[in-house]
Parts: sequence; C-alpha cells; structure tokens
Amino acid sequence: MRAAIMRSGQLHVDDIADPVPGPGQVLVRTLACGICGSDLHALHHAHEMVAMSEASEPPPGMPAPVLMDPSRDVVLGHEFCGEVVAVGENAGHREGDVVVSLPVVLDPRGVHPVGYSNEYPGGYGELMVLSDFLCTDVPNGLDPHLAALTEPLAVGLHAVNRSRAASGTSAVVLGCGPVGLAVIAALARTGVGPIVAADLSPTRRALATRFGAHEVVDPRDEEPISAWRRHAPEGPPVIFEAVGIPGMIEAAVTAAPSGSQILVVGVCMQSDAFRPMVAVAKELNLQFVLAYDPLEFAESLRLIADGEIDVAPMITGTVDIAGVPGAFEALADPDAHAKVLVVPPT
Amino acid sequence: MRAAIMRSGQLHVDDIADPVPGPGQVLVRTLACGICGSDLHALHHAHEMVAMSEASEPPPGMPAPVLMDPSRDVVLGHEFCGEVVAVGENAGHREGDVVVSLPVVLDPRGVHPVGYSNEYPGGYGELMVLSDFLCTDVPNGLDPHLAALTEPLAVGLHAVNRSRAASGTSAVVLGCGPVGLAVIAALARTGVGPIVAADLSPTRRALATRFGAHEVVDPRDEEPISAWRRHAPEGPPVIFEAVGIPGMIEAAVTAAPSGSQILVVGVCMQSDAFRPMVAVAKELNLQFVLAYDPLEFAESLRLIADGEIDVAPMITGTVDIAGVPGAFEALADPDAHAKVLVVPPT
Repeated sequence: MRAAIMRSGQLHVDDIADPVPGPGQVLVRTLACGICGSDLHALHHAHEMVAMSEASEPPPGMPAPVLMDPSRDVVLGHEFCGEVVAVGENAGHREGDVVVSLPVVLDPRGVHPVGYSNEYPGGYGELMVLSDFLCTDVPNGLDPHLAALTEPLAVGLHAVNRSRAASGTSAVVLGCGPVGLAVIAALARTGVGPIVAADLSPTRRALATRFGAHEVVDPRDEEPISAWRRHAPEGPPVIFEAVGIPGMIEAAVTAAPSGSQILVVGVCMQSDAFRPMVAVAKELNLQFVLAYDPLEFAESLRLIADGEIDVAPMITGTVDIAGVPGAFEALADPDAHAKVLVVPPT
Repeated sequence: MRAAIMRSGQLHVDDIADPVPGPGQVLVRTLACGICGSDLHALHHAHEMVAMSEASEPPPGMPAPVLMDPSRDVVLGHEFCGEVVAVGENAGHREGDVVVSLPVVLDPRGVHPVGYSNEYPGGYGELMVLSDFLCTDVPNGLDPHLAALTEPLAVGLHAVNRSRAASGTSAVVLGCGPVGLAVIAALARTGVGPIVAADLSPTRRALATRFGAHEVVDPRDEEPISAWRRHAPEGPPVIFEAVGIPGMIEAAVTAAPSGSQILVVGVCMQSDAFRPMVAVAKELNLQFVLAYDPLEFAESLRLIADGEIDVAPMITGTVDIAGVPGAFEALADPDAHAKVLVVPPT
C-alpha cells in the first residue's frame, strides 16, 4: 500500500507491505485521517515521546503498551475513519462497514497505539488493521470526513470533564488550534460562560467564535484574562492552556486570578520553568490532562453524528497521501490551518 | 521595647518604640512566638516577597493588604501567643487575657500582616498590637508555648482540607519540617493511610513517626514513592511537597503514580523547572496551597487545647529575643531543629 512513512525523523511517501488482519481484527481502507499536533511533535521528538512513555506506568489493570522504535518505519495517523475491506477470524464487522475506533489495537503481546507503532500503521497509509471489538459503526450516514474528527473532539470533551467547568462558571481558552476549538465546543454545550478565547491567528479566532467562544482576543492586543475581567464574571475562571509551548504555564500562572484552575491540555515536550510562589500565593490548581476514555470517545461520535456539534468548520484543508509532507510544512504556520485531513484517493 | 529587627537584610537586637493600641485594638505582651521558615526566606528575599504580594490581588471582598517596605525596620514573627496588657477604646478583651490571633490587623488603611509590617511588629518583639475582634482566648489553661503552634498546625490542616486526602486514601509527605509534621498530624486524624514521610534528617523522621507517619524513609536510601508502593495501597496517593526548594516539583512529578494529586505546600521562592509532558502523561493534579482560613485557625487551636493533637514534640528549642539571630543560623541546619520558639523573658 501507499503510505506517508516517518523514517529517520523525515516523512517519505513510499509503498510498504499491506497489513494483514489477524483473529479478532479487521482490515480497513482509510477514508480520512486528521493530522494532529502530536504527529508534528513526533516527527522531531519521537525518541523523547518513547522515553516518556517508558517512564510512565500503564493504568491499573491494563496491559503494557508496545512502544514504537523510532529508528524503524512508523506510519502516523490516529484520527481516522475507515471502511472495512477484509475481516479476520472471529471478527463481527462486515466488509463495507464504515467505522471509527479508539486508536489502539490489543493483541496477545499488549496494547499497540495505532499511528505510533512499527506494526500497526496509522491513517497516513491506505490500509489499517484495527481491533474488531474497538470499532464502532459510524451512524446516520455521517460523512467520514466529519467522523474522523471524533478523536480530537473527544480530547476537548475529556479536558472539560476533568475540569471544574460547569454551568455558572466561566472559562478562558488559550490557543484555538483543534484542541482549543474542541474545548470551546465542549464548554459551549455545558453552559459555561463567558468563554474568552485567545489566539494569534485571525483565522483561528474566527473559528473560535463559530465553535462558541463569546469573545475572542489577539493576545498581542489584550491579555486574555483582562478581556475576561471586562465581563465581570463571578468567581475565578477555568483556564485551558492549549498552546503547549515553553512559557505558557508561567504566563497562565501569572495572569490567573486567585483560586483559578488551569487545565494543561497543550503538550509541551521540553522542560519548562514557572514560579511556584506565584501559584502558591493564589492557591492555583493545575490539572494536567491526556486523551479521553472510551465513553468520551463514543459521546464525541454521537455529538457529531446527531449534529449537536458542527465540526465541519474545523477542516481547513485536505491532502492525499503524497501531500502529507507538504501539509506538515503548511501546519507549521498556525494561521493557515486548523485541521488538515489526509484523504487517500479511492 | 526590646525586639529582633529585620533591617537591611540582617537581624539586629535593639530597642524600638512600644506600639500603641488604637480603637478596637489590644496591646499584648508576647509569651511565645515560633520561628517560621517563611521568616528565614523573608530575611533574604523580602523584596521578592513584596513584589509577589503586589502582583496578587486580594481575595474578593477583602481590603487590600498594606505591604511592608523592606528598606525600613520590620519585626518578624506571626506564630504567637500573648497576654493582653492594655486595651484600646471599644476593645472587648481584658488585661490578663491570654490570646492567639490570626496574624493580621485590620485598620482603616487596610489589612496589615503582623510580622511582615513596618507598623505592626510581630512576635520577635516584647509587645504587639492586635485587632481585638481577631483575638481568641486560649482555652483550658493551655500552655502558651503550645498555643503558639496554632498557626503552623493550621497550615497543615488547610493543606489537607484542600487535598483529596480522606479516609481510604494514602499519602506521601516530602519534608518533615514543621509544615510537613503539621500535614502528617492532620492526615493521621483523617484516617488516611498509609502515610509515608520522607526527610534527610533522622531527628525529623523520628518526629514524623510521633505525629502519625506509618513509615518514614531517608530519601537517600529509598525513593519515597517506592516505599509507598511496598504497602500496595489502592489508588494513587496524595503527595505533599513540603520542602520548597527548586527541583522538588520535578522530582514529585517524576515519581508520582498516574492520577496522583500533588499538594505544593513548600514555598519555592525561585523560578523552577519541570517537564509538563510527564505531568500530562500521568494526568497529575498540582494544587498549590497557602495559609488557612479563620475556621481552620480556630479548629487548630481547639485540637491543641483539647489534646487531640500533641504538638509539644515539635518544639525543639526556645530562645529569648537576643537569641533570635543565633536561632536563624541554627535553623539553617535542618537536622538540629523542627520549631524554635522565641520566648521573651517575663
């Protein structure tokens, strides 16, 4: 099959062997796969990502993850929707089913993160092997391009679920890339208000408004917390840090009103400095969040399929597999895009 | 009166004018005053402390604090018990009353932190002026030396109240100075267990056991979280960081099991670095805490006066006012002491 392959820290478009479904697995043809900021990170920081995963313990009761070896080929892509084209032994799905899945495969050797694995290629390739029992049928004839956004929307739902945000509280969202937009969408349906969102990019600020932000600011014009104060909300806000570059935690801690909770959703790969004394003086709470659980993933699909959250505006571009390396370059300019989908030709 | 005075970053024992109680105020003779780690910090970092306070906003509905000018004289000491020796207009206490007080005075100009004020000397002097309505009678004929520990114990109660620690959870306490010991005492009566405490000092480890730690470790011999794991507790621990030196947050984040809450009780004055990615991967929660509220202060006094928490072992030394500079030097060696009380001669 054709695939965009991460090889020695670079993307190469090449032919590789088709993956073969084993027992309890299905082979799917990739219909659409989002390019995630974590994939951009992975291209340059794959070894650090693996070292970090090795240092973490699996959640209680879970088998250990089988981590990728970045010195071998990896096909990235974990935000996907696909069509079943072959079915392994003891698998319940049928050819033609359109499915999404949590981006993991469980096999006798452990948990493989699809898209960060040497054995289970992700959605930047034409074909993927998935665990049959983790695949969910896409309902309502939903466009596979929208279904592919199940995963990033679930990230936003999870961050909001983990936070103190609830009807009657207010929020500030720093960064309006796909994760920030998903957070805004999840906040908006929870009745949180005002939601003040900040981004350097006018394109992304316009998207933030479409997803439910009550006010958007360019942080070069006004400090986002100052903008929040103009609304004279009661109580401290919940602040979502969805930028993930060094210095953002210090900036959020410095700007946060007393008693604020800061949700760290952006993934800063480097070591980062801040002043604990400032956080102590204001009794801040920093909640770090990652991913989502299976129920949040299912809820995300339902919200999209039922039309409760219109994720279509998030898609700002599509490329075929040959276009993946160029899309990675284009995404380095945050003004150009929110979510780019990889759509292999049929 | 005689006082140990912070002057140009040094302690001087000298005579200064007696403070005079105004309306709604009382004059008290200091019976005992604890030396706090924050006072050691203040001697060398007073300007940073003031800058930090200036950057913070007062809690909603509270008047702004009147901050000290470190270039002028300051008498430190905010953990005190005193005897009323003169009563201002409209003050309800009587001469001879033995009292403790939240270490603040409210006057028409604002909130003055007693012991960090140019106008309201703290307990390293023979006399203090306090707000009558904030003074509480010491009950049960309680020894004023023990009553002076109301304030540091309240710090531990508050940290535990702000945490997720509850019966059925377990805890790891990093650092067994007075704050760490107060945390251990508060945890022990909440039914938390196991409580694993760590300190470099054998003296402090022995105190930790007396205050209720189920196991104490020298972190040079065993990583405290490893010691905690030997107890095979259910669920992640609540980790109390009560050391407050650079690198402790990174160390706690690195060692913490997935889903842990880290209470940052130690006050690190410098900027500090950690790896947000590690905290994200484990979905850690960092709760920064400061001080206590008036109810926690009152509860702390009650626990000491009713004998529910025996704080006496915390007191490892007493000095008179002339001995304060020497005590500051002695406290630089953490093995020598936990709490040193300043006890002016009667």
